[in-house]
Amino acid sequence: MPVGTAGTVKAVPQDVLETLGAEIILGNTYHLYLRPGHELIRRMGGLHRFMSWPRAMLTDSGGFQVFSLSALRKVTDEGVRFRSHLDGSSHFFTPEHSMDVQIALGADIAMAFDECTEYPADRTRAEESLRLTMAWARRSLNHFRAYRDEVVWRDEFGGRTQSLFGIVQGGMYRDLRKQSAEQLMEMDFDGYAVGGLSVGEPRDLTMEMIAEVLPLLPKDKPRYLMGVGYPDEIEQYARMGVDMMDCVLPTRAARHGLLFTSEGRLTIKSKKFAEDQGPPDPQCDCMVCRRYTRAYLRHLMQAGEPLAGTLNSIHNLAYYLGIMRRVRGELQGDAQHAVAPIAP
Amino acid sequence: MPVGTAGTVKAVPQDVLETLGAEIILGNTYHLYLRPGHELIRRMGGLHRFMSWPRAMLTDSGGFQVFSLSALRKVTDEGVRFRSHLDGSSHFFTPEHSMDVQIALGADIAMAFDECTEYPADRTRAEESLRLTMAWARRSLNHFRAYRDEVVWRDEFGGRTQSLFGIVQGGMYRDLRKQSAEQLMEMDFDGYAVGGLSVGEPRDLTMEMIAEVLPLLPKDKPRYLMGVGYPDEIEQYARMGVDMMDCVLPTRAARHGLLFTSEGRLTIKSKKFAEDQGPPDPQCDCMVCRRYTRAYLRHLMQAGEPLAGTLNSIHNLAYYLGIMRRVRGELQGDAQHAVAPIAP
Repeated sequence: MPVGTAGTVKAVPQDVLETLGAEIILGNTYHLYLRPGHELIRRMGGLHRFMSWPRAMLTDSGGFQVFSLSALRKVTDEGVRFRSHLDGSSHFFTPEHSMDVQIALGADIAMAFDECTEYPADRTRAEESLRLTMAWARRSLNHFRAYRDEVVWRDEFGGRTQSLFGIVQGGMYRDLRKQSAEQLMEMDFDGYAVGGLSVGEPRDLTMEMIAEVLPLLPKDKPRYLMGVGYPDEIEQYARMGVDMMDCVLPTRAARHGLLFTSEGRLTIKSKKFAEDQGPPDPQCDCMVCRRYTRAYLRHLMQAGEPLAGTLNSIHNLAYYLGIMRRVRGELQGDAQHAVAPIAP
Repeated sequence: MPVGTAGTVKAVPQDVLETLGAEIILGNTYHLYLRPGHELIRRMGGLHRFMSWPRAMLTDSGGFQVFSLSALRKVTDEGVRFRSHLDGSSHFFTPEHSMDVQIALGADIAMAFDECTEYPADRTRAEESLRLTMAWARRSLNHFRAYRDEVVWRDEFGGRTQSLFGIVQGGMYRDLRKQSAEQLMEMDFDGYAVGGLSVGEPRDLTMEMIAEVLPLLPKDKPRYLMGVGYPDEIEQYARMGVDMMDCVLPTRAARHGLLFTSEGRLTIKSKKFAEDQGPPDPQCDCMVCRRYTRAYLRHLMQAGEPLAGTLNSIHNLAYYLGIMRRVRGELQGDAQHAVAPIAP
């Protein structure tokens, strides 16, 4: 899922995302709540209509950004008080509030409000954090079930409502992860996410936690690994059974001039590309690689041109989506699918 | 002509410019000379190939930017010594050098090196400035004729070379303007530009100078009015007989959130558009007006999202190009042409 933080996948127009074959994007509840505000977006018909994105969409719970972006956080069992990173204004977020905001935004998939356990966290801290996340999951689910009929597009889609996913936490403790997964499954969410990974821990620990949790989760519901990762990671995790992932990496790296290609990572601003007339990635048939040279992209970065962010982002997203398309095809054992061309 | 200062019409991908029906764009010689450098662009096959723009292109002479952007200018009959606005490095530009740079860039149309007379300028100053511009026009033409065969794409196009336009100056003095036009016509350029207007003088003075000069210029060669203007101006000037115009206004204003519409100018960041679900311009069928609302564009500006500049620029360019398409059709007395749909 490309990340569209504030109702836009940064620097990439919606029609280009469609052409790239993006089937679902992610919006950040924290950002949209602060600006332009979830009530405004509800009045505009929900986030799909507001940003003109007719395909699928997922909103996170806001929790991760509250913990990573805002100032002066104070966590209680009730919720989190924090100050906006935009204007310092004070806000109080609870599981119930996160549900209200996400129902107003009206993405196809909403996420339970959780605390993303930091790394490293000792056993006591991980246990306490998990206790909070599980209590919040229960409250999220109860509130969501009570109010999900209020999603603005419900009547337009024959009474359909949003889906709600629970989030497995538990730090780097296998038994806590197991306990978390089991508790969530008892609550019966529409899908399950694994959170609190890729937060600074070594890669083999990430793998260990995924390997512990995935087999516990029902195969007939989506399994979503949050906030990963590099191209080789997302392929590895998909092969382990992960169905969904999101990461700002392809777009954020793009804006800083880092391109992911079949030949490895390119720091496109490097002088060595100044006269390189080859495409960014010779193996890629995205609209950027078909039209522009490394020399041109390097120039755009050097000159600080806004087109740099756009073109780099388009390529990186094409590269990521291409990996997922290939892996999906291979996993389905469907060679035809694996090489199916996408719309030009 | 949309302005593509540094080898890119800011924030707008080339395929979008094509879809908008842009037939010719302008590149700034001063910027491209400084970064990435004209020799690099020549080695990359010229500016068309470097930026992947197969349609027509014009480069200015670099003179205007030397006078408006650089520091520590020193003008002599020989040329201009100046310091780069990027790194303070010292450069010396002469008419011959401007031709060399423009031949390296390889746009379809190059411009003679001139001094854009400032406003206000007294008679003595305007005469002296015009003397310089006319001497430089002669030297530009001589050098261009001697070296135009060196354009990098010459052999690819059956020996075709670039065109060179002369620039009429003369401040706000009708007789100097007339004298300038006549001298340039004697030199026999491929087209003629009117420079040194829209530099701060009242609009009726602009009109007076255009009305003085245009009838003098040959009707079978392009007449190019440089650096204008607002939508009502470009329509007015086109009806007076101007064939070509360029201006950064549609794109620069767009990046600052100013939209030109059939309902007048919109400062899209204004709070009054926060919940406006209408298209930016109800009369416009550009890709932005067909897909996005004023509320969304307002949000993108508020949030400082790069997509704001892209979408606003696309609409403003569509609006400008639409005016020219309509006027062209009306002038040709060809109603069919006036309403001809452009590619979606």
